[in-house]
Amino acid sequence: MSVAIAAENRHVVIENVRPSLEGGRYPLKRIVGERLEVEADLFRDGHELIRAVVAWRAPGDAAWSEAPLECVEVGLDRWRGSFPLTVNARYRWTIEAWTDRFASWLADLTKRVAAGQPVAGEVAEGVRLIEAVARAATGRDQELARWSAVRLREAAADPAAALAIAAGPELADLMARRAEREGPTRYAPEQEVVVDRPRARCGAWYELFIRSQGRTPGTPAGFRDAEARLPDLAALGFDVLYLPPIHPIGTTKRKGKDNRLTAAPGDPGSCWGIGSPAGGHDAVEPALGTLADFDHFVAAARAHEMEIALDLAIQCSPDHPWIAQHPDWFYQRADGTIKFAENPPKKYEDIYPLNFDTPDWRALWAEWRRIVLFWVGHGVRIFRVDNPHTKPLTFWEWLIKDVQAAHPDVLFLAEAFTRPQPMKALAKAGFSQSYTYFTWRNAKAELGEYLTELTRSGMEEYFRPNFFANTPDILHAFLQQGGRPAFKIRLLLAATLSPAYGIYSGFELCENEAVPGTEEYLHSEKYEIKVRDWNRPGNIKEFVARVNRIRRENPALSLLTNLRFWPAENDQLLFYGKVTPDRTNALLVLVNLDPFRVQEGMVTVPLEELGLKPGGRYEVCDLLTGARYAWGDRNYVRLDPATEPGHVLRVERRLT
Amino acid sequence: MSVAIAAENRHVVIENVRPSLEGGRYPLKRIVGERLEVEADLFRDGHELIRAVVAWRAPGDAAWSEAPLECVEVGLDRWRGSFPLTVNARYRWTIEAWTDRFASWLADLTKRVAAGQPVAGEVAEGVRLIEAVARAATGRDQELARWSAVRLREAAADPAAALAIAAGPELADLMARRAEREGPTRYAPEQEVVVDRPRARCGAWYELFIRSQGRTPGTPAGFRDAEARLPDLAALGFDVLYLPPIHPIGTTKRKGKDNRLTAAPGDPGSCWGIGSPAGGHDAVEPALGTLADFDHFVAAARAHEMEIALDLAIQCSPDHPWIAQHPDWFYQRADGTIKFAENPPKKYEDIYPLNFDTPDWRALWAEWRRIVLFWVGHGVRIFRVDNPHTKPLTFWEWLIKDVQAAHPDVLFLAEAFTRPQPMKALAKAGFSQSYTYFTWRNAKAELGEYLTELTRSGMEEYFRPNFFANTPDILHAFLQQGGRPAFKIRLLLAATLSPAYGIYSGFELCENEAVPGTEEYLHSEKYEIKVRDWNRPGNIKEFVARVNRIRRENPALSLLTNLRFWPAENDQLLFYGKVTPDRTNALLVLVNLDPFRVQEGMVTVPLEELGLKPGGRYEVCDLLTGARYAWGDRNYVRLDPATEPGHVLRVERRLT
Repeated sequence: MSVAIAAENRHVVIENVRPSLEGGRYPLKRIVGERLEVEADLFRDGHELIRAVVAWRAPGDAAWSEAPLECVEVGLDRWRGSFPLTVNARYRWTIEAWTDRFASWLADLTKRVAAGQPVAGEVAEGVRLIEAVARAATGRDQELARWSAVRLREAAADPAAALAIAAGPELADLMARRAEREGPTRYAPEQEVVVDRPRARCGAWYELFIRSQGRTPGTPAGFRDAEARLPDLAALGFDVLYLPPIHPIGTTKRKGKDNRLTAAPGDPGSCWGIGSPAGGHDAVEPALGTLADFDHFVAAARAHEMEIALDLAIQCSPDHPWIAQHPDWFYQRADGTIKFAENPPKKYEDIYPLNFDTPDWRALWAEWRRIVLFWVGHGVRIFRVDNPHTKPLTFWEWLIKDVQAAHPDVLFLAEAFTRPQPMKALAKAGFSQSYTYFTWRNAKAELGEYLTELTRSGMEEYFRPNFFANTPDILHAFLQQGGRPAFKIRLLLAATLSPAYGIYSGFELCENEAVPGTEEYLHSEKYEIKVRDWNRPGNIKEFVARVNRIRRENPALSLLTNLRFWPAENDQLLFYGKVTPDRTNALLVLVNLDPFRVQEGMVTVPLEELGLKPGGRYEVCDLLTGARYAWGDRNYVRLDPATEPGHVLRVERRLT
Repeated sequence: MSVAIAAENRHVVIENVRPSLEGGRYPLKRIVGERLEVEADLFRDGHELIRAVVAWRAPGDAAWSEAPLECVEVGLDRWRGSFPLTVNARYRWTIEAWTDRFASWLADLTKRVAAGQPVAGEVAEGVRLIEAVARAATGRDQELARWSAVRLREAAADPAAALAIAAGPELADLMARRAEREGPTRYAPEQEVVVDRPRARCGAWYELFIRSQGRTPGTPAGFRDAEARLPDLAALGFDVLYLPPIHPIGTTKRKGKDNRLTAAPGDPGSCWGIGSPAGGHDAVEPALGTLADFDHFVAAARAHEMEIALDLAIQCSPDHPWIAQHPDWFYQRADGTIKFAENPPKKYEDIYPLNFDTPDWRALWAEWRRIVLFWVGHGVRIFRVDNPHTKPLTFWEWLIKDVQAAHPDVLFLAEAFTRPQPMKALAKAGFSQSYTYFTWRNAKAELGEYLTELTRSGMEEYFRPNFFANTPDILHAFLQQGGRPAFKIRLLLAATLSPAYGIYSGFELCENEAVPGTEEYLHSEKYEIKVRDWNRPGNIKEFVARVNRIRRENPALSLLTNLRFWPAENDQLLFYGKVTPDRTNALLVLVNLDPFRVQEGMVTVPLEELGLKPGGRYEVCDLLTGARYAWGDRNYVRLDPATEPGHVLRVERRLT
């Protein structure tokens, strides 16, 4: 019944290490160039002083680096520090703390001298501490230690002189750097932080079907045709072009227009029904061109400073090569046939789900790694993952970690429209970005509450929102009913609330025809080829381009956690701000959430958050219109959705 | 650079397990007879349903026990459950969750039948699941499984009939109990909960120096003399008698009266200067009697239903046997002499601290275990530990766990008057109870804030307060200046705010003479023998006895987390309540915090917290005076400190 005596006799306690997810079970997320700010409670028994560092290591580092922690709240034993995140990699970090024998000795000596006590014994102890450093140090450090020890010994009988020597800043610095750490406690487990490239947090996305980029109705376009669209998309200011699956589409059980059970001749089928005799997930649908055409398209997009995001949809058409090669990777009926996807009573006859409980699951995992790396080899650095919440979290955790170990610049966007916990869990498991509930948050209170959760609840440590304003599956009633103003409102909200946002093509044309009573598009592009007049009257392309230019020119919009909501005395007016940490870029955004009516009211600007003095006046410039206003702490605004539904006001200069 | 594929392909995720301290690094604390309520976020990928249990094991259990968790917030995937804590032991517990294949199948079948789809294939799958249970089960379970499988197969062509069989409650119960768990996830690390006897949370303590229990001034009393005091202390209603160190007191550097550097002949010395030729920490000071006398005293106290708490003071007088036996356990100067205790500029020449950094620290730890177990062998089950925050936390964590492994009824009270984090850390490390800042919390806002932290901040999971109203070292200005009413006020607060509280002898006599400008007692009993007239006029013994009787008769006062503060419209009136979970015992406590003046005002009772209907009236009985009042939701109170400074109102019956 007896308990073994501890292996080590440690004094320093490290607790409440922050930020940390489930005790370090999952990594934090940051962007290259930022610093990671860390905190912990550090203390030990007795009166001895302690010293602490945060230690970190990127994968290629030869050794751990360290930076000091400082005690920021003495009574609460709260310590804080930070370290720079300079490379795109998965860092490890932890905290180490130990007894600072020299500082403890110096504090003791100081009190004794102040009390007029003799200190010869204490001086001898200090000399021993300094001599130990002299033995271990070299060069200039060794000289300083030897010289200090000699001088201190000589001053043993003169407490004031001894204290003056002992308290010298050069000696303190030397001892802090070179004295052996006494009883160091190193926090376990080691923590991790995934340091991504900036695109992981910020980017304007545009979703398009390659086959709909042609000019002849009914005729599918290929990658070569689609290249003609690139200048226009670049001019609109998009950073990422997201392509739904580009792989061969099956013919067995292919869906017809409007999701009909049988396809008519010429119907292209849903591109999510992946796999045909032409190949599977590592092949290109012949109607779109060749792999070389794809490579050319990727290069052409890059020349326009846009990158390609591919869809990763883990499912197969009945014609996928794996059906024959790996029948055990699918759900089989008693009669040996393979089950198609169902969510009773709904049926997806053109899709076979994969069975992650197959005894051969290790080979299945490895094959998905191969496929991702195949496209990485073709220049793809972003994957938008279809329905990740229906595959095991452990699979994603492994896949993303493995791919990023060799290719840390590869990003994964989770398209998981599910309950909050599984959505969060996917982000913790490693997804770089996540689709959100944004499309269903339209009222002022909803937006405020949701964005506060995303930016200030702790979620911001691992969950990066990507605010798609529409998708091929989601055309919200607000857009169906609100006309052109509704599209401008939602674009402005998406693009200024979240550093990453996106639209699915047709949004800029204010396409709003839905299957009645649903959020589905009428005549969905998922099942047919669309040919659009991209300059159709009533489009909002100029507005999109302007908003994207504002995003590029204002670094405050590339940040997430700097979002603050401020008072607007009208339930249809949403007022918020984003300011860079150095306050050189400060934006005040006002949006009329009502697409039908003029809304007006008073808004209150918390001047101190902008670095302005109480009662001060300043000039703002509306980046949407170029208009300039002299503003104070309380201001009147009036927004007509028929003209401009919002202001994006940049603080230009102080007037008083 | 590649990452190994996971060892197991698990689906279910377990997160946010609560309550848990630093991820399970420290145990929770509970009392025998309670249930531990636990919660977690549980979910898996896809649409399959899951099932979960909380599993627990006490040290003597042959196997793990389990109780089901229920989903309490479906959208948030929050699950909850509980298990009984029936024995005084350190339990282990965790959560296990797995895919419920049968329930998932039944949910799928139900949807298909509702949609009018054929279900023959699904029925065949269900039959397979039931047959697997039939193979593994025995007796009645096997019969039911076999019979159900046969009937289900026969109904394959009749979806409604098949569903009726599949959805039967007996079959559901059987499958829940007997179906093999598919892909179980077991939360790691295992969590712990220390389940203590009730005295760990609740008890009235009385601190007394044995040597001052005599009747002849200047003559030390021994254990035999002190037995004469037991009936009086039992009549006052105390549960625990705490004795400052009873060990041999050193003579070298012995302190004289009023902490003088030299003792006069006959001065008894501080009992914290432990060790003489008569022995060390495992011996009894000869002036107090023999070990047999101590045993007799312990038994006599037990006969009065009081138990003894011993002082555990890890320090030695210069005459302690260890000085010769283990000089390396102490701090040695360069000249080989041993350092006495100092906190510069203060000096404690009669005390040598122990050096826990001695290379021989394992032997030092083991010796302290031996000493604790020695006194356990003499009937001691409570140790009040002197200054534990000046010894390593790892030592306490080991010592307490080791002692309680064999003697789970042994309790440790931490006397650590230090910063909040080290105080909390000692409680997490295993101390059953802790001294607090209570003596320095006298104003209404301070008391409210501090008690809210102690009862509702998360501290209540591991930190059990013991509210000493005074100690030999702390005579607060409030008591020095407030006279008899101040003593009654502080006793009433201590005894009703905290389930464990205590006084140091003399409190009941309202002794309030301090060294001017300090919280030290004048002519401190630490350095001299006191002989008191225990029935001196002006004493508050009757009040103490009444309050202790109220505590014993009202189970609401034995609980900590049921404390709630309620509105009183006067900054000198503190109003709070305690109600048992079953609401059969409901107390409303009002205290006038001003010892000098009558205070009056309106107080508001939240009737719903008492189980009373809005606007209802009820009768309360003041347990201090016997007076009865008809009360409603708003009531007038007037408290004169010269008569009674408080009400302890028990809700007796509803009037309307």
